Amino acid sequence: MSKKVAVIMGSDSDFPVVSPAIRRLKQFGIPVEARVMSAHRTPEAAAEFSKNAEKDGFGVIIAAAGKAAHLAGVLAAHTTLPVIGIPVKSSTLDGLDALLATVQMPSGIPVATVAIDGADNAAILAAQMLALSDESIAKQLHQMKVDMEQGVAKKNEALQQKVAEL
Amino acid sequence: MSKKVAVIMGSDSDFPVVSPAIRRLKQFGIPVEARVMSAHRTPEAAAEFSKNAEKDGFGVIIAAAGKAAHLAGVLAAHTTLPVIGIPVKSSTLDGLDALLATVQMPSGIPVATVAIDGADNAAILAAQMLALSDESIAKQLHQMKVDMEQGVAKKNEALQQKVAEL
Amino acid sequence: MSKKVAVIMGSDSDFPVVSPAIRRLKQFGIPVEARVMSAHRTPEAAAEFSKNAEKDGFGVIIAAAGKAAHLAGVLAAHTTLPVIGIPVKSSTLDGLDALLATVQMPSGIPVATVAIDGADNAAILAAQMLALSDESIAKQLHQMKVDMEQGVAKKNEALQQKVAEL
Amino acid sequence: MSKKVAVIMGSDSDFPVVSPAIRRLKQFGIPVEARVMSAHRTPEAAAEFSKNAEKDGFGVIIAAAGKAAHLAGVLAAHTTLPVIGIPVKSSTLDGLDALLATVQMPSGIPVATVAIDGADNAAILAAQMLALSDESIAKQLHQMKVDMEQGVAKKNEALQQKVAEL
Amino acid sequence: MSKKVAVIMGSDSDFPVVSPAIRRLKQFGIPVEARVMSAHRTPEAAAEFSKNAEKDGFGVIIAAAGKAAHLAGVLAAHTTLPVIGIPVKSSTLDGLDALLATVQMPSGIPVATVAIDGADNAAILAAQMLALSDESIAKQLHQMKVDMEQGVAKKNEALQQKVAEL
Amino acid sequence: MSKKVAVIMGSDSDFPVVSPAIRRLKQFGIPVEARVMSAHRTPEAAAEFSKNAEKDGFGVIIAAAGKAAHLAGVLAAHTTLPVIGIPVKSSTLDGLDALLATVQMPSGIPVATVAIDGADNAAILAAQMLALSDESIAKQLHQMKVDMEQGVAKKNEALQQKVAEL
Amino acid sequence: MSKKVAVIMGSDSDFPVVSPAIRRLKQFGIPVEARVMSAHRTPEAAAEFSKNAEKDGFGVIIAAAGKAAHLAGVLAAHTTLPVIGIPVKSSTLDGLDALLATVQMPSGIPVATVAIDGADNAAILAAQMLALSDESIAKQLHQMKVDMEQGVAKKNEALQQKVAEL
Amino acid sequence: MSKKVAVIMGSDSDFPVVSPAIRRLKQFGIPVEARVMSAHRTPEAAAEFSKNAEKDGFGVIIAAAGKAAHLAGVLAAHTTLPVIGIPVKSSTLDGLDALLATVQMPSGIPVATVAIDGADNAAILAAQMLALSDESIAKQLHQMKVDMEQGVAKKNEALQQKVAEL
Repeated sequence: MSKKVAVIMGSDSDFPVVSPAIRRLKQFGIPVEARVMSAHRTPEAAAEFSKNAEKDGFGVIIAAAGKAAHLAGVLAAHTTLPVIGIPVKSSTLDGLDALLATVQMPSGIPVATVAIDGADNAAILAAQMLALSDESIAKQLHQMKVDMEQGVAKKNEALQQKVAEL
Repeated sequence: MSKKVAVIMGSDSDFPVVSPAIRRLKQFGIPVEARVMSAHRTPEAAAEFSKNAEKDGFGVIIAAAGKAAHLAGVLAAHTTLPVIGIPVKSSTLDGLDALLATVQMPSGIPVATVAIDGADNAAILAAQMLALSDESIAKQLHQMKVDMEQGVAKKNEALQQKVAEL
Repeated sequence: MSKKVAVIMGSDSDFPVVSPAIRRLKQFGIPVEARVMSAHRTPEAAAEFSKNAEKDGFGVIIAAAGKAAHLAGVLAAHTTLPVIGIPVKSSTLDGLDALLATVQMPSGIPVATVAIDGADNAAILAAQMLALSDESIAKQLHQMKVDMEQGVAKKNEALQQKVAEL
Repeated sequence: MSKKVAVIMGSDSDFPVVSPAIRRLKQFGIPVEARVMSAHRTPEAAAEFSKNAEKDGFGVIIAAAGKAAHLAGVLAAHTTLPVIGIPVKSSTLDGLDALLATVQMPSGIPVATVAIDGADNAAILAAQMLALSDESIAKQLHQMKVDMEQGVAKKNEALQQKVAEL
Repeated sequence: MSKKVAVIMGSDSDFPVVSPAIRRLKQFGIPVEARVMSAHRTPEAAAEFSKNAEKDGFGVIIAAAGKAAHLAGVLAAHTTLPVIGIPVKSSTLDGLDALLATVQMPSGIPVATVAIDGADNAAILAAQMLALSDESIAKQLHQMKVDMEQGVAKKNEALQQKVAEL
Repeated sequence: MSKKVAVIMGSDSDFPVVSPAIRRLKQFGIPVEARVMSAHRTPEAAAEFSKNAEKDGFGVIIAAAGKAAHLAGVLAAHTTLPVIGIPVKSSTLDGLDALLATVQMPSGIPVATVAIDGADNAAILAAQMLALSDESIAKQLHQMKVDMEQGVAKKNEALQQKVAEL
Repeated sequence: MSKKVAVIMGSDSDFPVVSPAIRRLKQFGIPVEARVMSAHRTPEAAAEFSKNAEKDGFGVIIAAAGKAAHLAGVLAAHTTLPVIGIPVKSSTLDGLDALLATVQMPSGIPVATVAIDGADNAAILAAQMLALSDESIAKQLHQMKVDMEQGVAKKNEALQQKVAEL
Repeated sequence: MSKKVAVIMGSDSDFPVVSPAIRRLKQFGIPVEARVMSAHRTPEAAAEFSKNAEKDGFGVIIAAAGKAAHLAGVLAAHTTLPVIGIPVKSSTLDGLDALLATVQMPSGIPVATVAIDGADNAAILAAQMLALSDESIAKQLHQMKVDMEQGVAKKNEALQQKVAEL
C-alpha cells in the first residue's frame, strides 16, 4: 500500500470544498487522513503534525485554507515532504487573497498550488507524486485520463441535440 | 522605561525597507530589538521567540515580510501581544501579495497591518500602543503631530515660489 | 476598569458587520461606546470626537467604513491614540476599495488595518493593546487562545465522522 | 475675472505631477492658488480652507493625493463647491489605491475624479465648470479643441514619413 | 431657471442604476432630459446630441455605461461642457472595467468620474457645477449638507438602542 | 454558401454562455458546427480538429473556455485560420483568469478575444470576417447595425414615460 | 492584391508599439495605411474614416490606444469591417485599463482584442482574416508557422550549450 | 540514479529566470534535461515530448512560461507525470496573467504551480517528489533545510551591527 496522504483544512467550514479531494483519494485506494488544524489557532499541533508526517508514514500533505492562507506554507516549513496548497474562496476578494498567500512562497519552501477551490486536482496531483513509485496508482491515473477523454466525447454527442434545437 | 519592541524581518534583504521603523523607535527612546527570522526557514525560532516575547519584556512585535508574507501571522499565532505587519513589496505584483497575505487574517488572530513598505507607520503605531501606559511616549507623539503640521506649513511656503515660476 | 474603546461606523448600514466587535469587547468587560459618524457627512463631529477622545477616556478607536473608506484615516488625523480600521465590503469591487483606502496611509498617521469585514479581530486587537497595561484583559486573551485551540480540536473530532462517510 | 481655482496637494512631492494643472489654469487666465495641505497632517487647516473657500472667492477645488488618497474627499466634506480629485501614483500598486480612495465616494459627497496623474485634465475640467458662466473661458475651451484637432492632423502627417521608412 | 442637465444611459437596462440621478435633479428643480443613447449602437445620434448640447441649453451631461464604458468619453469628445461619467457594474469584473474605461481619459478630454453605480453623486456634482452661477441651487446644496448631518445624528441615536441589546 | 464556423466549448457546462453565438450564426445563415472539446481532457482531438479545420471547410473557429482558458490558444497553435476566444466566467475571480489566459497570447499566435461571456460578439466578429468575401453576410451585418440603431431609438422613447414618473 | 489594412493609433507616441504591425503587414505584401487619429481629439475624422473604410478598399482596421482606450470601439461603431484592438500599456496600471476598455465591448459591436502591446499579433490576425479569400496570404501564414517552429528548434539547440555551462 | 527531470521553457528568453532550477537540480545530482518548446509555436513537439516523457525516464516535468502561459497545462494534458508550472513575469501585468493561466487548471489536469519567477522552488518541489522513493535526495533536502536555518541565523548576527549603527 502506498504512503498516506494527509488532508488538512484550516477550518471545518472548508469541508465542502475539500471533500472532493478525500473522495478522489479513496477512489484511488490511497490511505488518507483528514484533519482540521490551523496555522493560527493551533500552530503547535500543526508544527508537530508536519514535523512527524514523514516518519508517520505520510507521503504528501494537502492543505486547504482561505483568506491569508498560511496553512500550506506553515506545514511546508516543517517538512521536506511535498505540500500541496488549495486556496479557498471566502466571502471577500473572490479567492485572490488565498491564492497569493498560498502560491507566492519564498525561495526554499515550495507549495505546489492548485486552482482556487481546486480540491479534486490536489488529490490527483498527490496521486501523480505517489505514482512515481507505485505502479497501481500510475495505472489508475492512465485509466482516469482515458475515462475523461471518453466522458468529453459523450458530452459532445449529447450537445448535438441541444445545438440542433437552437 | 517602556516595554521593548521587536522588529522582525523575514529576510535581511528587507533591512532597507524596515530600518525607518528602527530609527523612529530609537528616536522615541523605545528599546528595540531587531532580528532576521523566517516563518518558513526558521519556523521554530520564530515560534519560540513569539511564545516568550511577553515574558521577555516585549510589548509589541513588528514583522515585515514580502510575497506570501506569513511572518506576522505566524508570530501572532503564538502570542497575545499586538503584532504589527508591514507588507513588503517584492519584484512581482507590486506588493499586493504581501498586503493580502498579511491583512486578511482569520477571526481570532489579528495582525495590525500598515501600508506596503510602511515601516515608519509601524513604529508610530507601536509607540501609540505603548503610549497608552507611558506618558513620555504620549508626549512625544503629541509633539510629533505638531512638528508634522509645521513641516507642512513650511513646505507650503516653499511651494509658493515654485508656483509663481510656472 | 480599562480605558474605553470607541467603535465608530460610517453608516448605520455597517452595523451588522461591526456588531461582532462590540459583542467581543463587552465579553472582555471593556467599556465600549458605539457611534454612527461620517468622515464626509459629519466631518466636524468626527474631528471633534477624535480630538477629545484621549481626554474623554478612550484608549483605542475602531473605525469601520466601506468604499472610499476615509473614516479611520480622518479620525487618526486628530488623535495620537491607536486607530484600528475595518474595511467594509460594499456592493462593488468586493472590499478592495475599502481595504486600500484604509491601509495605504501616508507616513506619520498609521491606521492598524484588519481584514475586510474583520470586526471580531478589530476588537481582539484593541484588547491586545489595552492588555499591555491591564492584567485582567491579558488573562482573558490567554484564555481565548486556549479556547480557540480546544475548539479546533473538537471540530477535528467531529470531522472524522464526516470523512468516514465520504 | 472668473472665480479662483484652488490646487491643493497632499505633499510637496506631488508638485511635478500637479504642475501641469497650474500651468493650464494660468494659460486660461484663471486665477489659481496652490497649497500643500494634508488631510492627515494638517486636518484643521484643510477643513478651515475648505469651509471658507466659497466665501474666499474660489469656484472649484482641485486636490491631488497618493496612496490612501483622502484629501479630495475630506475637502469635499466641508464645502458644496465642486471638488476635483487627481489620484497620484506612488511607489506601490501603480496608482490603483489612490484611484479607488478618490473615486469611490459615498452618496452625498461627490469627488469629480480624473485619471491617475491626470492633472492637465483636472484643470480643463475646472475650466469647463467655470465656463458655464464665463464666456471668455468657454471661448478658450472651444479654441483648445480646435487646436488639439489640428495638432493630431500634423502628427498624422509627420507619421507618414516614419511609416514609409519601416 | 438653470441650464438643463442631460442624463444619458448606454442601455435602458441601466435605468434602475441611473434613476436616483434623475430624481435628485428634479428635487433640485433642475430641468433634466434623459435619453438612451449608445456610443456604439447609435454613435451618430450621440455625436449629434453632444455637439448641439451647449446651444440646446444644456449645462452638464451625465453619462452612465457599463463594461467598456465609452459613452462619457465619446460625448466629451464633441463638447466643451463638463461631462460626468457613472461607471455601471455589470455581470463580470465587479465594475472595474467600467471604472477604468470611464476615468482613465487621455489629456485634453476630461470625464468627471464618480463611484461605480454612483448616480446620486453624479446629480449632486452637476448641481454643484450649476450652483457656481445659480444662487438657488447653491442654497439647496447647503441645506442638503445640513440635512445629511442631521440624518447621521438621528441614525446615531437609533444605533444606541441596538448596541445596548447586543 | 460561406465557409463553416466551428464553435468549440471546453465543457458542456459552457453551453448556456455559448448558445447565443450559435443562434446568431444560424440567423446569418452561416453553417455552424458545435463541439465539446477540451485542451486538457481531449488534447489530441482538439489538435486533430484544428489541423484539419481549414481543409474541412471551416473559415473561423470560435473557442469558449473558463479558468486557465487554454482552448482558444491551443486551437490557434494548429491552424492559420482566425481563432476567436470567448473567456467564460467561472465561480472564482469573476472571469479575469479566463480573460488573461485567452488574450495574452505570445507573438506569432493571435487569439481574437471578445468580452467575458461575450458569445454574441464572437459570432458577429466571425460573420464580419466571412463577410470580407461574402456579399450576403455583409448585407446582413449592415442591416443588423440599422436594426440596433432603431432598437435604441425605441428604447429611448419607452424611457421617457418612466422618467416622467420619477 | 488584397484589401487594405488600416493601422490607426490614438497618439503618435504609440508608434514604437505599433510599428511591428506595420512591418509585418508589409512583409505579407498587404497594402497598409497608418494614421494618427483619436477617438477623443479628432472624433469626426475617426467617424468619417471608419464609415468610409469599406468603400475605400479597407478590409480590416487595427486600432491601438492606451488608458481609457476607446479608439477601437469607436471605429467599430461606424463600420461592419472587423476591427482589431491593441491595448497599449501606459505609465499607470500596467495596461489593465487599456485591455478592459478595449475588450469588454457590449453586445453588437465586437472588437477583436489581442494582448497588451501585441501589435505583431494584430497584424497576423488581420492577415488570417484576409487569407480567407486570398491564397497568397494563406500560403505565407502556413510558411510563417513552419518558420516559427524551426526557429524554436534552433533556439533549443543553442540552449543546450548554456545549460551545460550551468 | 533517480528519474530525470525535464525543464521546459516556452522561449529562450526565459532562460535567466529558469536557470536557478537547472542549477539546483544539478546540485541535488538529479539528471536534468532542458528544452525550449512552445505550446503555441511547436505544439506537436510539446505533445510528443510529454506523451513519451514517462517511458523516456522522466519523473517530473517543470514548465516555465509567461503571459497566457499555456505550456504547463498543455504538457499536463498529455501525461500523468506531475507537472510543475513556473509563471514568468513579462513586460505587462506584473506576472498576474501567467500566474492565473498556469494555476487555474480545470478539474482533472492539475499543474503544481509555484510563485511567479519561482524557479528555485520548482526544482526543490521536483526533488521532494522524487525523494518519496529516493533516500539520497531525501537526505539532501533535510540537509538543505538545516543549511537554510543556519543561513538565517548568520544573517541575523550580521544584522545586529547594522541595527546598532542606525
